[in-house]
Amino acid sequence: MQECLEALSACMQACVMCADADAAEGMGRCASMCSNCADMCDSMMKMMLRMHGWDMGVMMSMMQSTTMMARACSAECMMHADMSEHCRMCAMACDQLVMTMEKMMGMMSEAMPMA
Amino acid sequence: MQECLEALSACMQACVMCADADAAEGMGRCASMCSNCADMCDSMMKMMLRMHGWDMGVMMSMMQSTTMMARACSAECMMHADMSEHCRMCAMACDQLVMTMEKMMGMMSEAMPMA
Amino acid sequence: MQECLEALSACMQACVMCADADAAEGMGRCASMCSNCADMCDSMMKMMLRMHGWDMGVMMSMMQSTTMMARACSAECMMHADMSEHCRMCAMACDQLVMTMEKMMGMMSEAMPMA
Amino acid sequence: MQECLEALSACMQACVMCADADAAEGMGRCASMCSNCADMCDSMMKMMLRMHGWDMGVMMSMMQSTTMMARACSAECMMHADMSEHCRMCAMACDQLVMTMEKMMGMMSEAMPMA
Repeated sequence: MQECLEALSACMQACVMCADADAAEGMGRCASMCSNCADMCDSMMKMMLRMHGWDMGVMMSMMQSTTMMARACSAECMMHADMSEHCRMCAMACDQLVMTMEKMMGMMSEAMPMA
Repeated sequence: MQECLEALSACMQACVMCADADAAEGMGRCASMCSNCADMCDSMMKMMLRMHGWDMGVMMSMMQSTTMMARACSAECMMHADMSEHCRMCAMACDQLVMTMEKMMGMMSEAMPMA
Repeated sequence: MQECLEALSACMQACVMCADADAAEGMGRCASMCSNCADMCDSMMKMMLRMHGWDMGVMMSMMQSTTMMARACSAECMMHADMSEHCRMCAMACDQLVMTMEKMMGMMSEAMPMA
Repeated sequence: MQECLEALSACMQACVMCADADAAEGMGRCASMCSNCADMCDSMMKMMLRMHGWDMGVMMSMMQSTTMMARACSAECMMHADMSEHCRMCAMACDQLVMTMEKMMGMMSEAMPMA
């Protein structure tokens, strides 16, 4: 889980910076998706840290949503990765998050095959 | 969508107040779930307000996660609704949100049957 | 306090929408300030709702910071209020928040002159 | 600034975990203050990352508010630091943040003595 938390934190920070830079360059869709991704990373991170509230169904669902968001954000950022360094950095952070989340979802599914 | 935004905002506020009251009463699981629900409502609300970043797949997934969270939070709160007014209020706000979100997901699915 | 909560919620929503629209129009500074203002409104709102954690010194300081942010955000938005409706709306929500917060800070200072 | 971001991130995570543990133990005031501190760290971190929206007055004010919050949170946590490990960890993260923020505010004041 430590790996997940670090990936979420890094992705959140990259997304906030990318959204800020996007806005100054008029890249509205990228800014908007990065802001959404940052918010979801934030919520996901806090949910992982709150041990007493873990609910397997909600957790898996939110992990899937966050993974989907990070994948969509990465795809959007990759379209501008040649021109803008912040998009390239953000896409990398999103990809790293997707990988880490999928690993954790795999481990959770194995541990609780019925969930 | 205005109805959704209002339900999300009301649910977020009810959850923050309920979590705060729970903590003082030692209801750890309820506090934790309410905090999670508040965070997800917050993110969901902002995602709805950011028109330029709408992505149908992510949106539907996040709406499902939020609905699942609100349902779990309501179930937890209902267990203490007889004793604590804040749990009763919070459960009501969660139920209202579930209803509103399901209505909106239904409308979105009809509008885009392939999504 | 109900008045404050409503003004904070309205300002937060107006700021998120304005930031999103700004980004698509390349207004980087406005987008950035609106995003900051939205985050501060969010934190301020939750702090008001958490009754058990009230600390007069922190509360007054955060109310002053939020008021200063809303004033700066309104000034930035007013520079584009002629051209863009979302900036006009956002400036109005910020001004309304400033007024409400100043009223509440006045009441709190009277109630606790030593704070 | 990197040092500040790391201290904010660490403090935010320690506060979320501490609030969660507090709630299960019925320490309402500590849970509430930790939640407030987590939210303020979150906002402060994002404001630092958004380069285009920097406003010296708002920034200094928010840094002071966050420092005051971290100091109050640390004081509260220190009262239970003997019994609960999470409070001890949280107090340390808060103290670290206070130190880092004061250093940065000092540097900013020197760079812009009129701000």
